[in-house]
Parts: sequence; structure tokens; C-alpha cells
Amino acid sequence: MTRLWNDPADFADEMIEGFVAANERYVRRVPGGVVRSTVSPDGQVAVVVGGGSGHYPAFGGLVGQGLAHGAAMGNLFASPSAQQILSVAKAADNGGGVFFTYGSYAGDVLNFDAAQDRLRDEGIACETVTVTDDISSASLDEKHKRRGIAGDLTVFRVAGAAAEAGYDLDAVTRVAALANERTRSFGVAFTGCTLPGAPEPLFTVPEGRIAIGLGIHGEPGIDETDIPTADGLAELLVSRLLDEVPDGVSVAGARVVPILNGLGSLKYEEMFVVYRRIARLLADAGIVPVDPHVGEYCTSFDMAGTSLTLFWLDEELERLWDAPVDTPAYRRGSVVAAARSTAVAVEALTAEIPASDEASRTVAAAVRDALQTVVDTIDAHVDELGRMDSIAGDGDHGIGMQRGSHAALAAGVAAQEAGAGAATVLARAGDAWADKAGGTSGALWGVILNGVAGALGDTGTPSAAEVAAGIETGVSGVTSYGKAEVGDKTMVDALVPFTTVLTEAVESGASLPHAWGKAADAATAAAADTAALLPKMGRARAHGQHSVGTADPGAHSFALIVSALAVVLERN
Amino acid sequence: MTRLWNDPADFADEMIEGFVAANERYVRRVPGGVVRSTVSPDGQVAVVVGGGSGHYPAFGGLVGQGLAHGAAMGNLFASPSAQQILSVAKAADNGGGVFFTYGSYAGDVLNFDAAQDRLRDEGIACETVTVTDDISSASLDEKHKRRGIAGDLTVFRVAGAAAEAGYDLDAVTRVAALANERTRSFGVAFTGCTLPGAPEPLFTVPEGRIAIGLGIHGEPGIDETDIPTADGLAELLVSRLLDEVPDGVSVAGARVVPILNGLGSLKYEEMFVVYRRIARLLADAGIVPVDPHVGEYCTSFDMAGTSLTLFWLDEELERLWDAPVDTPAYRRGSVVAAARSTAVAVEALTAEIPASDEASRTVAAAVRDALQTVVDTIDAHVDELGRMDSIAGDGDHGIGMQRGSHAALAAGVAAQEAGAGAATVLARAGDAWADKAGGTSGALWGVILNGVAGALGDTGTPSAAEVAAGIETGVSGVTSYGKAEVGDKTMVDALVPFTTVLTEAVESGASLPHAWGKAADAATAAAADTAALLPKMGRARAHGQHSVGTADPGAHSFALIVSALAVVLERN
Repeated sequence: MTRLWNDPADFADEMIEGFVAANERYVRRVPGGVVRSTVSPDGQVAVVVGGGSGHYPAFGGLVGQGLAHGAAMGNLFASPSAQQILSVAKAADNGGGVFFTYGSYAGDVLNFDAAQDRLRDEGIACETVTVTDDISSASLDEKHKRRGIAGDLTVFRVAGAAAEAGYDLDAVTRVAALANERTRSFGVAFTGCTLPGAPEPLFTVPEGRIAIGLGIHGEPGIDETDIPTADGLAELLVSRLLDEVPDGVSVAGARVVPILNGLGSLKYEEMFVVYRRIARLLADAGIVPVDPHVGEYCTSFDMAGTSLTLFWLDEELERLWDAPVDTPAYRRGSVVAAARSTAVAVEALTAEIPASDEASRTVAAAVRDALQTVVDTIDAHVDELGRMDSIAGDGDHGIGMQRGSHAALAAGVAAQEAGAGAATVLARAGDAWADKAGGTSGALWGVILNGVAGALGDTGTPSAAEVAAGIETGVSGVTSYGKAEVGDKTMVDALVPFTTVLTEAVESGASLPHAWGKAADAATAAAADTAALLPKMGRARAHGQHSVGTADPGAHSFALIVSALAVVLERN
Repeated sequence: MTRLWNDPADFADEMIEGFVAANERYVRRVPGGVVRSTVSPDGQVAVVVGGGSGHYPAFGGLVGQGLAHGAAMGNLFASPSAQQILSVAKAADNGGGVFFTYGSYAGDVLNFDAAQDRLRDEGIACETVTVTDDISSASLDEKHKRRGIAGDLTVFRVAGAAAEAGYDLDAVTRVAALANERTRSFGVAFTGCTLPGAPEPLFTVPEGRIAIGLGIHGEPGIDETDIPTADGLAELLVSRLLDEVPDGVSVAGARVVPILNGLGSLKYEEMFVVYRRIARLLADAGIVPVDPHVGEYCTSFDMAGTSLTLFWLDEELERLWDAPVDTPAYRRGSVVAAARSTAVAVEALTAEIPASDEASRTVAAAVRDALQTVVDTIDAHVDELGRMDSIAGDGDHGIGMQRGSHAALAAGVAAQEAGAGAATVLARAGDAWADKAGGTSGALWGVILNGVAGALGDTGTPSAAEVAAGIETGVSGVTSYGKAEVGDKTMVDALVPFTTVLTEAVESGASLPHAWGKAADAATAAAADTAALLPKMGRARAHGQHSVGTADPGAHSFALIVSALAVVLERN
């Protein structure tokens, strides 16, 4: 379990501060994460990695010469927001374009893609290769749907070395994609980690058993078995990976980097005992191990688990892998030290408050009250949301929503007190939510609030139809952004009925409070359908079955919020 | 807990094999541990480190250019034997003398000192600096009695860099002693590790509490308190260390390397949160942090604990600390890669069997039976001995005695079947015991058996007086070697009454079986006195009191063995 913190809500931020204090030779802090504290050559492609925090040395520990130029560091197990990623990317940019690479998770894809769009809009070239090395997380036919785990390291390293060697953005993209195609991982676990302040681990496996193919945040595994011997585990890992050799590779004589990664509390000595057998099995298969890695490269706090990665080299990949690198947590070979950067921290800009009229400022006060209602609702249900999410996901939905709603309220209040109209108050709230909550739901709430904000305007009082249209804009933003449809068991399952019922009711002449109440009921009913899946998923997982679909507690939290707002609208 | 192994008895050996397989660029295996696989310049001082296994990256992970030339790797938490250390030292020697440095523990001191004597006897210069950084383990007045914990790294690094820079043996010794004087550590823990195959952790601390000043093998702490916040822990660690600034150092303006070391399952993110506050406290005191280290440098399997080390630099120490280094687990700066060594593994020599006569071969058969009795006795009491040791020490006495006695029997049988006389059979058994058991008790049993062997000879039948004289020789070897006296609550408490009563009885004309029986009774009574202390120590420890003295289950196991032999002697 995690044992040391001050306030769990401050953990990620204080962790980054301590990390930077200990590693000023390598990194400096910028809004959203860290970039190198050394100077990079003009025109060098900037490799930007990132993801949720809690996986050290991923991701900040991998910033330095020969590896990443910057890391967007999200909250614990939550994607950094698009704004954070954008901030890191702009600070890292050397004029040669930005290359994004990160483990493939829905929230990260959503936020990195949004940041990529923004960079391109600003005329900065940007390309992406997501890491999809975990062979247990989807079939080979759907390789693009796989998660990124410890194989992050090979893709990051190859991209970083290529940038350092002067490859242009297209060439970095090409070789990183090849590295991802040549990287396959498979993992097992005994227990999940316990997040700071959480009462229990994200998951447990029955005594004497081991989960197979588990994700690094406690995502469901594909099987469960009795705890094997060290040799037995080596045989399991190697046989699974040799069942899926990359296309065009001949096993006999292949040169392969084996990476035996510890997730946190499975320790070095045990891994060396396992590696002893792995080395023999690789030799038996005619494989030549190159530069074996046994250690902690991508952790999950104190999770007791390990994964084996095989990185199938070709001549170019091996040359890039062998290049010198010097970062806080990963060093190798002789790096010619670069000069220290004299850049000062890039501060987030505070935009001016647009003009507003009295009518809109009255609406803005109501928006402020609504934001307070959202905060109160989430605070009252935070534990319940966390529990729901620990069945389907990584258990952070409650604290993520709490972080986002509190940030939204604070930003909304600040704007309202500065005289902003309704649109500005709500847009600021939405941006703050996305920025502070991170993850998928943070980004989506940012989209929803910004959609509604556009309909409210900073002058006049919006009609019920305008509000309904704003909600529709937000919802269509969510579906196009998140690429989920009704029936996928996500937040969208509640959003779509809500907006459909709301629009119909308003069109048939209902008042906003009345229409909102009907729409909230529809959202609640839809969320209940989704939530009803959760106990079933929990059981399936306990029995070691593969995922039966992903039910997102986001539908439930959306229904809670719109229902609470219905009560407030009714009352006023 | 440790979760992966094949046979726990093979764990350390298989761990070393896996470690070497993963790190052939750095190390090659020799009997007793590892040495660099790269060539060192002729005449360079060879820095040899070592200790029990279970502390990775200490000690094998620290062998490579700029750091150690070799590491003697003992069994889990057990000192390597003198023979293992000697083997590593001779393989590491470059003709410039050998420098030993290791954390100060009784077993390690005993075995490294014996190896040092042997090296000097063979004309190889050898000097030693033991690391004594743990300020909680003895008062400043008795600094030489302190344990070595994570501060090992600073002393090893300075010695390794000095050797690499061409310092001669005296100069390496001087600067390493200075580094040790300038290195102070203080640690805390939440739980101890669980050794491979062990049913429970070495220690636990009550829910919500933290042990202060605990050793890395679970040695008793000096206090216990409620779990502090991360900031509170930082304040505790820094304040204790600033209470004991090395002589001649002015705090304001001092340049200090802070090392925040994780013991295994307290993870990086938590340590960064703690380090954030440490950095501020050091700055408040006017201290300039140089090259902060936050990570795992000396672990104890999955122990949940952390320690802070402050290394107070002077100009020479800082220059040596900054020197390039390249090892499996510790790398920094640009090392000019040395050529790979073409040396082949140094094999242990098998000596010829000396001539014997029929009478001595008859005694040798009785010695073989006696060794079998020892094995049977230890096997029957292995759990009991482990439990006793887990109160006073690190819980490995049972398995250590088992490993040693089995190795002694195997070596004795091999010699006896090859026609050896009594002295050779017993001496081979003693050497095997010391070599395979490691630790303090292994070394001492080697001394006892070799002492008796000298009295038996390989010809004729020894008299009772000769046997008694042999026992006396062995016992005086133990007391001079181990530096313990009667009353120190060690094995010596049983040894001395045993030999005194035996000699007196034989001198007054008793038969060997009769005299042995009386002596065994005296040893049993004395061991019972020592053992009676154990429950008291357990209670004291649970209440967080400082050590009330060290009761060694070695007295108990000695009494068990001589009592079992008394029965056999009586019967024949």
C-alpha cells in the first residue's frame, strides 16, 4: 500500500515538485509536466511522452538527452489534460516539430489528440505513435486497441535516439511505429497497488493464485492460475510471447532485447531468479538476447506484478537502442553533456474577461450556483463512484470528478467575481475541469461545459431552446471526441437520452425546469442499465474471464449531476 | 512478501546466475560472487564489497568501472564465507592490493577479517574500512559499533573512484575512512520483508505505527510512533541527522549529497513527496544539496521502509563522487569503456586426500556418523531455531545451520569414502560448513570443527584428553575470532562451560562418553539461561525499546548438537 502523503489531493503535484527538486540536472518544471533542463539543438524533433502519474520512472524519469524532451504528467493514473500536454509540447518544441508517444489508453488518446490538433492549428507539425505492446489486452487482429505497458520504453528510446541522431519528424514517426510493431509484452500480477489515501488495493487475487494478462492499473486480466514456480512463470511468459512473433521475423538467430519489468513490490532478486530461466528458454529457441533489462521501468506504485517484453531488433532499431542516454532514471553509454537551459518556466496565460451585460451576469450567478450543486453532488457520492470504477476501471473516477468539479467551481467563481457573463464563467469552469481532472471524464466534462457555454453567450438571457441546443452541441462534441456510441456502456449511454428527451420536451413547449426533470429521469434510467452490468463484471473478473464490456461509472455520475440540477431548477 | 522462487534453498544461487546472465557486459561469476567482466589496469587497487544477498543493487549491482571490482555475495541475509570472499578478492586483484569495504555486521566482519588474514599471509596487501552510517544503531561514542545501511553507497563510490583515479591502497583507505566519517543515515519502516518460502514477514509494526531507526534486516528499532505525514517524516529524518553533524563541518554552506533510499515496497512517488520537504529543510539550514538521489540503492526484498543519508562533502570527496561510473544498477557520467576480460572462471581447487591409517579411518567412520547426527538434530529443530532467531536477529539461524550441516556431512562423506583419516574428514566438513552456511555461525562452526580435527590426526586413535584439547582449541579460536566473551549472550555462553566441564572430567579420569555427557548438560543449562532472555527481548522490541542485549540462538543449537552426540557416544 501507499503509506506516505500529506493531503492525497496534493500528492501528484507534490510528487512532481520533489522529483524536479531531486533532478534539476535533467528537468525543469513547466505547467503540465517537465521538459529537459538542457539545451537541445535547433530543429531537433521534440519527443513528448506522458500519461497518468504513478508509474515512475515513466514518465518524468525518462526525460533527458537521448530520450524524451518532455513529459506531460497527469494526476495519479489519470491522463494529463490536452492543455497540460500542449503546454509541455510548446516548451519542448525545438522548431523541428513535436512527436507524441505514449501508452494507448482512451483518456490519453483523447487528450493527446486534442493537443495535436491545437499544435497543428498553430502551425507546429505534430505526429503520434501510441504504444500497444500488451498482447493480452486485445487480439492480434485488433492490435491498435491494445494497451501500452512496459514496452513504452523501447518505443520512447528509439524515438528519442532517432531525434537525437537528426531524423526528421516523418523518419522519427516511421521508426517509432516499427519499434512498436516489434515490441510485445505479457504480464502477471499478485495484487494491485493501493493509491494514496485509498482504503484497499485496486484489486486482489485469491491466496495462492496469480492473475494473467493484467493491466498496470488493475484492468481485468484474461485468466488466473495457481502461483507458478519462478521457472514456471518464465515458461509462461516466454511461451505466450513466442506464440506471437512479429511478422517478417525469423526466431532462430533473432536479436532480441528482453525486458523483465517489476511493477513495484516484486523485487529484483525474484526477477533475477525468473530471468535465469528466461535466458535459457530464449537460448533454446535460438534467440540472441541483447542488453537484457531486469528492473523497474514502468511501475504501478506497489503493485506486485511483473511483465516480460521482447523487443525484436533489426539493424536500425539496434543502433538506435544502443545510443547513449542520460535521464533521471535511465542512463547508458557516454553522453556528451549539453549546456543547461536558461529558459524560465512558461507560465499559463490568464486571459482577459470579455464584456458582459447585466442579464448575462444574472445567468452567470445561476451558473455559479449550479457549479456549487455539482460539487456538492460529487462530494456526497465520491466513495460510491470510486467503488464502481474499481470494478470496471482503475478506481479513480470519484476523486477525478471531485478534483475536476472543485477546480471548475473555483475557476467559475473567479470569473463571475471578475464580472464575467454566463458563457465565460461556464467556459472557464469547463477548461479548469479538463485541466485539473485529466483523464477521459475530465476532458469530456470540459467539452460538455464548453458546448453549453457557447449557447449561453455573455449577453442576454438564453431561452430554454438555446440551452437545449447548447447541451446538444456538448453531447455531439463528446461523441465525436470520445468515439463512443450508445450501447458501449460509457457516459454516452446517459448523455444521449438526456439530450434527446430535453430537446423534445423543450420543442413541445415544456419549461426548462420541467424538460430538464424529464431528461434527468431518462439519464438516470439509462445509467441504471449501465450500472446494473457492474456486479456482473465484478463476478466475471473474479472468475478470471476476459472483459465482458466496459461499463463506465461516468454515466452514473452524469445522471447524479443532472438530477441534482433538476431539483435546483425546479426550486427556483 | 517474496512470491517467486523454485526451491528456497537454491534462491541465492539462482539469483546470482540470473543476475550474471542479464549483466554479462559488467560482471562474470567466480566462486563466491562476481568480479568485473572488463579489464582493469595493472596495479589498480581492487575494491571488493559484499555481504548477504537480498539487498540489490547492493552488492553485485555495484560492480563495474568506477565502482567495485568484485562483490562477495553471501546467502540471503548471511555473510559470505571467508573462503568466498578470498576467492572473489583473488579474482579481482590487479596487483595493487585489495581494499575491503562493507556494511558492519558481526558475520561480515568475522569473515572479511579472516579473508584479509589469508590474503596477507599470501603476500597480497589488504586493508578494510567498514561502513557504519546508521546513527540509530549505537551512540556516537561507539560509532565503530554502528551498522552499515544505505550509506554503503558513498563509501563504495569514493573508494571505487579513488582506485580508478590511481590512488594507492593507503590513499584509498584514507579517503574511504573519511567518506564513512562524513556519512550518516537514519531510517524508518512499516513492515519487514518476507524471505523466500518464509511464512511471515521478519517483523511487523502495529497498524498505524512506524518503527524508527530499524535495521535493514529487521534488527530492532529505537522507537515507534504514529505514522507521520510525508512532511512529518521528512522533518523527523532531517532533524535526527542535523543533530549529528560530523566534526569539523559547518552546516551553513555545507555541500551535501542527500540519498533517500527505498527499502523495497515504499515507492518512488512517495519518496519524491518526502524529498520535496527534505529539499526545503536542507535549504532552510543553509545546506547546498549536491546530486540528490531518490531511489532504491540498498533494499531488503520488499521491506516497506526508507532511510535518509547525508553525505557531507569536502572538495576531494566531491570530486571522487562526481567521477564517471558504469555498473549494472548505478551509472553516471561518461565512462570510457574498458576491454572485455578474457579471464575464465577461477575454479575452486580440490586438494589431495592425505595418507591415513586403519585406526584413523575407523575414527573417521565415527566422525561421519557424528556428522549425520548433527544433520538429524538440526533438521528436527530447524523451525524452532528460526523462530528464536527472528526474535533476536534476522531469522536465518535455522536454515543457515541446516545448510552448513548438510554441506559438512556431504564433504565429510566424500572425504571418508575417498579413504581419508579422521582429521581430514572433519576439516573438510568444517570448511564446507563455513563456506556454504556463511554468516557468523557458519564461520564459527568451521573454526570449531577444524580445531577438533587438528587434535584427531589422520593416524592412530585419539585419547579422550586429545579430543578435549581439540575442543579447547576450537573454542579458543571462536572466542578470539568472534571477539565475544561469556555473558555476551552468544554461542560462547554454551561453548565455554562445555569445554571447561569436558576438560575437568577427562582430567579426573572420566571416560569420553561420560565426560561428554556432563559437558553437554552444562552447555544445555547455559543455553537455557541465554534462551530465557529471548521472550523478554521480543517484548522489549514490541514496545519499541532499544536492544536489551543480543541473545544468540547459536548457544541453543550448540547445546542441542552436543547433547545429541552425548547420546550417540553413550550408546557406542
